[in-house]
Amino acid sequence: MSFAFEVLHRDAGSAARLGRMTIRGIEVPTPAFMPVGTRGVVKTLSSQEIKDFGYKIILSNAYHLYLRPGHKLVEQLGGLHRFMNWDGLILTDSGGFQVFSLARLRKLTDEGVLFQSHIDGSSHLFTPELCIEVQEALGSDIIMCLDDVRGYPATREEALEALLRTTRWAALCLGAKKRVDPALFGIVQGAMYPDLRRLSAESLADLNLDGYAVGGLSVGEPRELMVEMFEVTLPLIFEAVPRYVMGVGKPQDIIDGVLRGADLFDCVLPTRNARNGTLYTSHGSVNIRNSRYRDDPRPIDPQCQCLLCSSYSRAYLRHLFQEREIFGLRLATLHNLSFYYHMMENIRIAITQNRLHSLARDFSVQMEETDD
Amino acid sequence: MSFAFEVLHRDAGSAARLGRMTIRGIEVPTPAFMPVGTRGVVKTLSSQEIKDFGYKIILSNAYHLYLRPGHKLVEQLGGLHRFMNWDGLILTDSGGFQVFSLARLRKLTDEGVLFQSHIDGSSHLFTPELCIEVQEALGSDIIMCLDDVRGYPATREEALEALLRTTRWAALCLGAKKRVDPALFGIVQGAMYPDLRRLSAESLADLNLDGYAVGGLSVGEPRELMVEMFEVTLPLIFEAVPRYVMGVGKPQDIIDGVLRGADLFDCVLPTRNARNGTLYTSHGSVNIRNSRYRDDPRPIDPQCQCLLCSSYSRAYLRHLFQEREIFGLRLATLHNLSFYYHMMENIRIAITQNRLHSLARDFSVQMEETDD
Repeated sequence: MSFAFEVLHRDAGSAARLGRMTIRGIEVPTPAFMPVGTRGVVKTLSSQEIKDFGYKIILSNAYHLYLRPGHKLVEQLGGLHRFMNWDGLILTDSGGFQVFSLARLRKLTDEGVLFQSHIDGSSHLFTPELCIEVQEALGSDIIMCLDDVRGYPATREEALEALLRTTRWAALCLGAKKRVDPALFGIVQGAMYPDLRRLSAESLADLNLDGYAVGGLSVGEPRELMVEMFEVTLPLIFEAVPRYVMGVGKPQDIIDGVLRGADLFDCVLPTRNARNGTLYTSHGSVNIRNSRYRDDPRPIDPQCQCLLCSSYSRAYLRHLFQEREIFGLRLATLHNLSFYYHMMENIRIAITQNRLHSLARDFSVQMEETDD
Repeated sequence: MSFAFEVLHRDAGSAARLGRMTIRGIEVPTPAFMPVGTRGVVKTLSSQEIKDFGYKIILSNAYHLYLRPGHKLVEQLGGLHRFMNWDGLILTDSGGFQVFSLARLRKLTDEGVLFQSHIDGSSHLFTPELCIEVQEALGSDIIMCLDDVRGYPATREEALEALLRTTRWAALCLGAKKRVDPALFGIVQGAMYPDLRRLSAESLADLNLDGYAVGGLSVGEPRELMVEMFEVTLPLIFEAVPRYVMGVGKPQDIIDGVLRGADLFDCVLPTRNARNGTLYTSHGSVNIRNSRYRDDPRPIDPQCQCLLCSSYSRAYLRHLFQEREIFGLRLATLHNLSFYYHMMENIRIAITQNRLHSLARDFSVQMEETDD
């Protein structure tokens, strides 16, 4: 087991912390954002491009890779790192959230979750044991426990059932783990009920897992409620382990998470928004489809050093989007992942300098200057 | 005017020639293949990637860029080279072929061609003068004369009308040319009638243009007829200028053109086929969608050094195609353009060594080993 996490510095004005997560000799400075490579590829980009930004860890999905091409095939081909030519770290989501959000006819029992594939309708039973088997076959560096995710709003009874099941499953996941190397993270549930979040965190704590995630967010709840759940849940997780906020989020959400002590994030927004033509910049977001950019010779963000901003005009990117040229999706994705990388860098620097609140305020003003 | 073309060596066993075309100080070794960047982008790739292969010249299209985003806009933004961040050479097709193949309600008169845009149905009159204006505004290095293209089969009367009009238009294009720098190429028509090809070539020769193309091929004729037209038409073009076979072709077609004295080629096949999952290799073509590649750990072509072949398995590429991941289209495009670049390099070496016929034979055998 080569997993380690150290807190290097605490922000004087908030619960934010600067840390270092080390796996297989690879150091991830935290707080960190993990680009999403659901199907063994960060959409439109090569692994080398992800590495060139400075990213050390990406997220992939057990659910998708289990269905296609199959975890056994990936294992036979040397594991996910080799399959996708990525020598950094991989965290795989367990599939709990994907079964909730994508699969059809989901049926939850204590044994596991029975569902129909969103691809071909075939039936599958995802158990804690299978979830670990899949992630170990993929060769993940960080394995997530299977969790029971509910939508918003969930009744107190539903939320209690889901969190108790999530804890039982976490124990089964821990027991099912055969490989020593990967770290195992638990997922705190409890919907929007502070006392249930506490119950979930405390019951999972007994398992002494390598890290803990705040799950069950970004399921349709208002933003304020999500931030309240950060506030409630993050302090319940051990100081000594990484705290991961799953599926979050917008730049402002990430800063709100960091301010409350979160270390890891993942989200499809920078890559998905890129493909929709929405680009993050230091002066707000830009929707490149807007006709005002038709003849705009300026780069998307003069402060950005990415391929898009160093070599192409807004007018060119708009032209690519108008013509549905794939290269436009790629340039926009490069840009947004560059933006997120530098945002996390700035967050880490601000923590070191005990001025994260000030960065958060400036950032909040900047990001409101949207053109939309 | 900084255009020059030299024949450096003639193959002892065929009409093939090794040459060097120089424009703006940029040297293009010929025979050369020009990747197609119809809308100011070689689909899925960056200009840097095209440059990294070694390509010195690409093709773009006056017709498409005139319609969107508009040649005046591109000019205002500094020209096509700057717009697409390409510092190599650009040859633009005049639009004659695109109006023939894409536009609706095409009406030909001596003045020009009236057509409706394939994008929005708007009406446009493309004249020889406008065709030059558009290409000069784009800042092309090689401008093609507007030509009258007919389908296959065309009657002798149609073919005669089209070639005479093409010659008149070429004279008008020459007269309309305002900029000194770009080279101007004429297009030999005459459909599949050898005597009309001769008439076309001879009447265009009087204009003393910088180069000549064989047009009106790849319009549905049998392959043998196309090769016969190479055989008939190419010797009719001056020895001292580049001979360009437009819209051709498959690897075997290109070798057949080179054997008969052609210097330049362009074709959408390597890029379009890539996006359909068909990859060219030294052992025939591979359709990566084929289920036999599901668990194939080998590179597409062990003899290829491209990003795809050096870093990814066939199984991974198939997975990307199965999942409709854009990165797969990009990897396949990189591979096919790498294949074409090295094929042209091998052709040039074979000419130097007076063994092009032998390369053509070997190649013909190799390319038949397809999996489809």
